[in-house]
Amino acid sequence: MSALKSIGTTEIEAAMATLGACARTAAHVLAAAPAAAKRAAIEAAADALEASREDIIAANADDMARAQAANLNAAMLDRLALDSARIDGMINGLRAVAALDDPVGRVLDERTRPNGLRIERVSVPIGVIGIIYESRPNVTADAGALCLMSGNAAILRCGSESFQSSNVIAACLRRGLLAAGLPENCIQLVPTKDRAAVGILLTMDEDVDIIVPRGGRSLIERVREESRIPVLAHLDGICHVYVHAAADADKARDITFNAKMRRTGICGAAETLLIDRSALAMLPAILVPLHQAGCEVRGDSDVCALDPAVVAASEVDWDTEYLDAIISVRVVNGLEDAIQHINLHGSQHTDAIVSEDEAAAGRFLNEIDSAIVVHNASTQYADGGEFGMGAEIGISNGKLHARGPVGVEQLTTYKYKVHGNGQVRS
Amino acid sequence: MSALKSIGTTEIEAAMATLGACARTAAHVLAAAPAAAKRAAIEAAADALEASREDIIAANADDMARAQAANLNAAMLDRLALDSARIDGMINGLRAVAALDDPVGRVLDERTRPNGLRIERVSVPIGVIGIIYESRPNVTADAGALCLMSGNAAILRCGSESFQSSNVIAACLRRGLLAAGLPENCIQLVPTKDRAAVGILLTMDEDVDIIVPRGGRSLIERVREESRIPVLAHLDGICHVYVHAAADADKARDITFNAKMRRTGICGAAETLLIDRSALAMLPAILVPLHQAGCEVRGDSDVCALDPAVVAASEVDWDTEYLDAIISVRVVNGLEDAIQHINLHGSQHTDAIVSEDEAAAGRFLNEIDSAIVVHNASTQYADGGEFGMGAEIGISNGKLHARGPVGVEQLTTYKYKVHGNGQVRS
Repeated sequence: MSALKSIGTTEIEAAMATLGACARTAAHVLAAAPAAAKRAAIEAAADALEASREDIIAANADDMARAQAANLNAAMLDRLALDSARIDGMINGLRAVAALDDPVGRVLDERTRPNGLRIERVSVPIGVIGIIYESRPNVTADAGALCLMSGNAAILRCGSESFQSSNVIAACLRRGLLAAGLPENCIQLVPTKDRAAVGILLTMDEDVDIIVPRGGRSLIERVREESRIPVLAHLDGICHVYVHAAADADKARDITFNAKMRRTGICGAAETLLIDRSALAMLPAILVPLHQAGCEVRGDSDVCALDPAVVAASEVDWDTEYLDAIISVRVVNGLEDAIQHINLHGSQHTDAIVSEDEAAAGRFLNEIDSAIVVHNASTQYADGGEFGMGAEIGISNGKLHARGPVGVEQLTTYKYKVHGNGQVRS
Repeated sequence: MSALKSIGTTEIEAAMATLGACARTAAHVLAAAPAAAKRAAIEAAADALEASREDIIAANADDMARAQAANLNAAMLDRLALDSARIDGMINGLRAVAALDDPVGRVLDERTRPNGLRIERVSVPIGVIGIIYESRPNVTADAGALCLMSGNAAILRCGSESFQSSNVIAACLRRGLLAAGLPENCIQLVPTKDRAAVGILLTMDEDVDIIVPRGGRSLIERVREESRIPVLAHLDGICHVYVHAAADADKARDITFNAKMRRTGICGAAETLLIDRSALAMLPAILVPLHQAGCEVRGDSDVCALDPAVVAASEVDWDTEYLDAIISVRVVNGLEDAIQHINLHGSQHTDAIVSEDEAAAGRFLNEIDSAIVVHNASTQYADGGEFGMGAEIGISNGKLHARGPVGVEQLTTYKYKVHGNGQVRS
């Protein structure tokens, strides 16, 4: 895995084809590997990160210097930066993944047919996973470990900004694999910064089974548009908090504030507050902490009439993921109206109802067509860790295969094992 | 649902957009419908088919006359034809689907987190399913009922040859829905024969969640190429029977014959026989019934040397789905060689080992990367009905979402329901 920084398209194509073939071969070995070997590889990788702490920081300093020279903005520089605490985070993350239950080999279903055939449905790895990410170099470790524990070979395509850091981290993962007697090609980093490599990766449907993009909207849109391989991704998180007529006022205030302001830049952050007309008396108390925290409030005419600090919302606000300290607020005429608004304007990610009425909450949870539906809690719980699934590689709001947090279990598929004693079909 | 037979592209686009919007609205109602209503709709549809027997046969006679005039071949005419027995088959098929367990609302997982959040994972319908099929009009009934029982709205695009028959059948399904108090738009047939409608359907990603093509290779390739919506399909069934050194000779003969010859035109039919060099003594007895049944045998040089009736196979044979009375036969040097051949040349559909050695069989079942792996039984058991899943809409050899037979369970996805009492995330 040598770094090819400036090579022609033909060389990139050849390098990518080799990467794909090596991944497929490694995947077949890894699929049959026992849990102990996978755990040993991840633990050894964590040890290698520990031992390479200074190399990682030096490589990251190179990346940072180049990024500063290229005038990357502060948010991107922050995502790129690694310090000892963040390296600790990676190491602890690896050890946590190594401690997860093995998601491979679970018997999901078993039945014996009248003709004596015994049919088992057993979880198996997907195969080869291509992961395309942006500036955070720690994704190299997180995603690599999740793929490894789920028995999948990984082809990692890091952001060009984190190329040096990611190379050192990937080398640690590969050392871990070797130490555990597994093929080091279970984890490969695309050896060039050239963006053409992404386009080539997205066409390698013989050798890559699934693509997971992790990054901003433009990356995910490009991947969805170009990929000939199935993509596991979410594009938007337009999450709602709906304050129902029978809401508890304190819960409504606290949940709204947390869902919007705990972290504004994550996909589980709320973007729109819906409130029942008959609960409007609760609204001023809900808006006070938002105003105090500097959150811009964009409301419909009813909300504007109630509070002069509210800006008028336009139609486009109901379809906007701000990822910022901005919230849109709309008055609705009851549960049905709220459900219609969310199913029309939402992104099928995470939506919450605040209500003391169990029947209303039950209807909301049933009828909102989203990956995660929440009663009386913050939308910011939309997270694999919070769900007790261990680390996650992302949150899917597609409907096929995996919905919601994608952890090691969601990185498996299944096969049917049919056990006979000579049966032939009549 | 009026039949628009010759309209311009703008009209088709408008008609398709209306179809999509109506399907989405109907899907939201159907998703919340109790099992009893879905069963009642399917039973009422079966009654309507019974009552419309003569109309169906008359419409089918129109279709047949048009198909004969267009010189369709005998196989296509056979697939198109409906008689009273085939209508009975449809009616019984509907009643069997109505008797299935409701796949919606199953609690797949439930956990309570330390913070008191109770998290359920519950099966829900996928939403709107677009089904594109060819000449068999009975798919209208089968696929419509499977979608309905799994809580999904269906947009059915029948083959142009079966347009009249399919319209009468779809009208019966819609009468069943109305009788059960469900929106008749849960099942809609594309109201034009114009092929442009397929291209439009494949771009309707806002209103259609998944596309299921049912038909020949050219249809499935076109759908895979053009679709902007996830596709659930299998393209090839290059299935293998591997006769291991420790095979029982009678089982090897009977399983090979059944896997190849029971029906040659189905995706679970075997195309290639692999036999261990040390089991070659069994081969003549395996080939006798194949020769007798008129099956062409294409062998490698070892096989040709053994039997003058064998034709020499070329490299392309190992990658060919004959769907006909032809089998390719290759000698391999043991289990590992067989596994490599199958993982390289197979289509990840269904592959079988014949062996009395449990350890060898276990390794084969683990290491063959196919949807269905079989020990000592025919590959022709690859079928949802044979698996005890009830009817199937097809067999998937993709790895995501559903692998193997796709029945009502595989036509669902899941959502997370999070139950709190005011929790906010720190």
